[in-house]
Order: sequence, then C-alpha cells, then structure tokens
Amino acid sequence: MVTAADTAAMRRAIELAARGLGATSPNPVVGCVITDASGRTAGTGYHQRAGGPHAEVHALRAAGDRARGGTAYVTLEPCDHTGRTGPCAQALIDAGISRVVYAVGDPDRQAAGGARTLRAAGLQVESGLLAEEAAAGNTAWLTAVRLGRPHVLWKYAATLDGRIAAGDGTSRWITSPESRADVHRLRAEADAVVVGSGTLRADDPQLAVRGVDHAVQPLRVVLDTHATLTPAARVLDGAAPTLIAVGERADIRHLPGVDVVRLPAAEGGIAVPALLDVLYGRGVRSVLLEGGPTLAGAFVAAGAVDKVVGYLAPALLGAGPAALAGGGITTITEALRLDMTDAVRLGPDLRITAVPAIAPKER
Amino acid sequence: MVTAADTAAMRRAIELAARGLGATSPNPVVGCVITDASGRTAGTGYHQRAGGPHAEVHALRAAGDRARGGTAYVTLEPCDHTGRTGPCAQALIDAGISRVVYAVGDPDRQAAGGARTLRAAGLQVESGLLAEEAAAGNTAWLTAVRLGRPHVLWKYAATLDGRIAAGDGTSRWITSPESRADVHRLRAEADAVVVGSGTLRADDPQLAVRGVDHAVQPLRVVLDTHATLTPAARVLDGAAPTLIAVGERADIRHLPGVDVVRLPAAEGGIAVPALLDVLYGRGVRSVLLEGGPTLAGAFVAAGAVDKVVGYLAPALLGAGPAALAGGGITTITEALRLDMTDAVRLGPDLRITAVPAIAPKER
Repeated sequence: MVTAADTAAMRRAIELAARGLGATSPNPVVGCVITDASGRTAGTGYHQRAGGPHAEVHALRAAGDRARGGTAYVTLEPCDHTGRTGPCAQALIDAGISRVVYAVGDPDRQAAGGARTLRAAGLQVESGLLAEEAAAGNTAWLTAVRLGRPHVLWKYAATLDGRIAAGDGTSRWITSPESRADVHRLRAEADAVVVGSGTLRADDPQLAVRGVDHAVQPLRVVLDTHATLTPAARVLDGAAPTLIAVGERADIRHLPGVDVVRLPAAEGGIAVPALLDVLYGRGVRSVLLEGGPTLAGAFVAAGAVDKVVGYLAPALLGAGPAALAGGGITTITEALRLDMTDAVRLGPDLRITAVPAIAPKER
Repeated sequence: MVTAADTAAMRRAIELAARGLGATSPNPVVGCVITDASGRTAGTGYHQRAGGPHAEVHALRAAGDRARGGTAYVTLEPCDHTGRTGPCAQALIDAGISRVVYAVGDPDRQAAGGARTLRAAGLQVESGLLAEEAAAGNTAWLTAVRLGRPHVLWKYAATLDGRIAAGDGTSRWITSPESRADVHRLRAEADAVVVGSGTLRADDPQLAVRGVDHAVQPLRVVLDTHATLTPAARVLDGAAPTLIAVGERADIRHLPGVDVVRLPAAEGGIAVPALLDVLYGRGVRSVLLEGGPTLAGAFVAAGAVDKVVGYLAPALLGAGPAALAGGGITTITEALRLDMTDAVRLGPDLRITAVPAIAPKER
C-alpha cells in the first residue's frame, strides 16, 4: 500500500534526480531517498556524474547502519549489472534494506533485472509510484534509449510575427535578459549544443554555459559541411569542448588541433541522422538545437525534434527570417502538430514548450 | 472617502458597461449603479445602443423614487449636453441623487462639464474610483477620441513559427474551434471588421458574427483598390452591412447596389489613414483588422495598430506566409516593441494580447 509518506519520499527523490541533469550521460539521472525502519529519512543521494557512484550508493553511504530494515525510494529501477560501479541491487541487499519502491522500470536491457534480484533476496519490491513525474524528469535519457539517438530539444527566439532577425539580419537582442538566462539553463541541462555554420557566421556565439552554478559545460557542436569555420571563432575558445562536423571532402587544414568528425554526404547537405549517430556514440543523450531556421528544418524533416522551446518577444518586425525554414511540409494537413505543455512569462517575454503530438519513431 | 461598498458598486458598473461593447458607437460604453439613501442597490443600467438612453437614464428608471438621496456610480463622467437624448447630469439632479461617483472624466469636449453642473446643483461629486479598470473597458472609444480615428485591434492566427498558411496557401484550420469562437467575440465587440482583397480571394470569408448572443453585426469592410470583388463573395451575403473601399479609378460597374467608397491613391496602394477617416466619419470607433500580412503591414507602417491579439497554434510549418509583411521596419532597433498584457490557453492554442510599448500618436 502506498502512503503519503511514500509519495513524499519519492517526490524528494525526483527533485534530487533533477540535480544531475546535463552531467550524467550516457547514464540517466536518478535520485534516491532511504528511510530507516521507523520511516524517518536516513540518507539521500543522486547520480552526480557518469562514472561516479549511483544514487543508491550515495544514499546508502549517507544512511549507514540506519538503512537496515528501511525502505529505499528510487526514481529508476536499481541496476543489476556491474559497469563502472557495482550493481545497486546487491548494494541495497547488503545494506539490509527490506523494501524498495521505484518509479520507472529500467528500459536498458543491459541494466535491467534489478527488481527480480531484489525479490529473489526476499525484499519487498513495488514499482510505478509517481512514474509519470519521474519519467518526465528523465525524458531525454528515456527517449534516447528508445530511439537509439539523442533526445533533441529545438530552441528558438522570435518576435510575435515569428522572425528571428530583422530584414537586415540584426537580431541582438530580440528577447530579454530573463529569456537569455533561461537558455543558459537549457544548455547546462544538455549534453551537447548544436548549431550550423550559418548561425556561426551571423552571430559568432560562444555557446558555453554562463551564470549557472556547478554547470557541466556541454559539448559544442558545429555542423559545418564546408569547414568555413575560422580558428578565431568564439566556439573554439576552450571554454567548453567543441566538435566540428564537416563533409567528407572538406579542407580542414586551417583547423589544426580541432576535434573534427567527417559526416557522409546527405540530401540537402545536412546529415542529421549521421550527426546524431556520432553524438550518441560519444555518450550524448540530450541535444539542445540552437541552430538557425535551415538546420532546424533539417531536423524537422528527419523526424528528429522531440521538444520545442520558443521564446517569444513582444515585438513585431514584418521582415526577416522565420524561426523555421524547410522541413518538407508543403500543405496544412502535413503540419507538424504539437501539444503545448507549458507557457510561462519570462520578464517581458513568453516561453512556450511543446512536444510533437505524435512522438518521433525509431528510424 | 471611498468605502468597500463604493468599490463594489463601481466594479458592477464596469461589468455592466462591457455588455454594450460593439453596439454603442460612436458613443462609449457606460455602466451605472444607483443605490438608495441607505446604500442598497436601487437600479442598474448600461448604454445599450447609440441613440438609446444613456446608462444613467436606464438606472434611474429602474430605481424610481428610491434614487432620492442616493448615490449614482457611473463609469464615465455624466454628460452635460443634449444630443439624441437629454443631458444625464440634469436627469441625476432631477431624480434627487445626492452623490455622484464616476471613474473616468469625459475627454469629449462636447459632452464634458457634467461634473461642474452636478456640483453647481449642490451634489457631492467624486471621480477616479477604479479609473484604470473603467478606462480599460472603454479603451477603443477613449483611443478613438484621443486620436480622431478608430481604435485598431489587429488579430492574426499563426503557427509557432509564425506562419498563417502553408507553402501552398492552405490554412484551414490552423487554430482550434475555441480560438475561432473567440474571434467571433472580437467581431461582436468591434464596430467594423477590415480585410484586404488578398484575404478575400484566398479565403472568401463571411466576416459576420456567429455564435454570440445578442451580437450587433459589425460593418464588414473590404479594402479592394482595383474592385476585384465579385458579387458572389460571401462578404456580400447580406448577413451584415458591407462597405467596399476602392481606388479612385476602379471600375465598379459589376457591383451595383453595393456600398462603395473611393479612397485617394496612397503610397504602396493602401490608404490606411484615408480609410480610417471614412470609417470614423461613419461612427466607427473600433476596428478589428483581420487582413493578411500585407494589409497588417500597411497599418503598422501607418502607426495605426493599437492592440494585437495573436492566436498561436501548437504546430510548425517551415514554409508559407508570415503573419506580418512590410511595415517599414528594416533593422532590429526599429522593431515595433509591445507590452504583452495577457497570455491564455484557448483549447490547444495560446492567445497572446499585446499593446504598443509606446502608444500611437495623433497624426
């Protein structure tokens, strides 16, 4: 039976898990709360970084002997395999935990099976508590596991008439300081930030996280088919790692010492699936797409947009590029329909969050 | 001294005033609450239609003898002139009202002076109670009086990427039934609905109000410089009055019996100020601009947009016309900056309301 105390403990575990966003890939974020035999909180923990201890281990260490006879609340099914760290199921058994409540089953076949091991050892195991909330906190990782490619969040900033720049190309600043600070939060939560060479030429963005405490810098990725990037670009300033994806025949002699990957040629020049494969192989599970309209269009056409965050500034331009160009949609019935999940004011602006009404499928 | 009872009575008067929206032009909307000598509500009323009794007269009739020694709460300063109806100031004096509380002073010089007359007759007169709320309810009329042209509300419906139609021109239905019902409310509150010939050719809209109880149909106005309209257009179906504004040399022989006005030639072909002059002269105080991007751009360029209502559908198109085109803005510092006053969900859509950060000035 689920009590109010169970729900409160799991909600706390979900909050703890969120602290790991942007730092745990290729692992999920996980939070754990351990209560003693009388139900008092004995220890808490979360998965802080890939290669470091899992959430359960942090919490067990904090709880010490008080874990004996207690309950472990975990946002994800405890793992049962020995990777860079030992299996958590065994650690929970060894600590004398008598009951394990987890929110979401582990979809990763390699890690799954923890629940069975726990039950076999005589522990009481329950699942599904606050599963929807916990899954929402792990959306990027769960999507990546399901699709075999990183979760892609497309972010744009536009005026009410959908322009990302004026007719002469100027765009600083369409949105407010509050919106721009929020973008740094998105970057901190992402494993990689992706732009195209057009955005680089227009804005020379640094793409690093600023103003977010304890942020792990994302991998900065530039899709630059013809290797037009110059060594003076701010994206090569060393503030965060950077990967340049170029075409098969690009001349990269002017970029010595730069991390470059060659992508196979693709229709339209933008090899979105190939790029996502490369990033997935490097452990990237969440991508923040900050590219311009053409790159965003290529991701839409590839069915590789899982979430949209739009910052709308209360302004009108009447000319200038739209937020999205291309995408292969020609008539209204083909529109990419979304569900708006959130709309909040950020200073003078409005932030809209939406997800595809029909989730992207495996390729 | 203002009491809670005073505030409550004025708020009720403001609510009553709103019932007249779309039906009172060229007059403002006005609401009135009359309490008896002991403070109990004795009568209420609102200005229902131009040419009909003013709010005070309705309320006095309802109150009868109970008005004697009572207080009149009026959203606008009582008029002092004899137009199609007698002056309200005198009516309040004759009824034995002892105190008059009004929210907003009358900016119309012809009608103003009511407060002075009331004071001269020995009544206690107070002003300014809930003035901001009352002014908001009368925005269109107050703007029209100040600028000498109708208040213009530009309405558009677009996808998140700012498109009002797909690449092939199809647009039914971008927004939801909830949003479309809301547009009928806007039409019902407007004196005139304005579109250009491009919208007419693309959509053949009827532009009449449907699904709103007791709605007064707005004047349907088509800006059609070359008189390309055909007699079969739905806008000529008789469901509401229609005015066609054509250029000086347009051939209108194919439109017998149609109300046509000729506008002088203008740069860009769209004579916005001339059109607004014609409408103002016909008693129109509030215009709902439902035109396409080009017409909206001409209104923006003319400094003739007082309010923007955007219906944003959670969809992406990547191609197709933007909501606004033209307007004379070429660089980001010239952007028409707005203040977002409201953002609400309408079914799956989002309705954003905004007003220019710097209000349009007199020409």
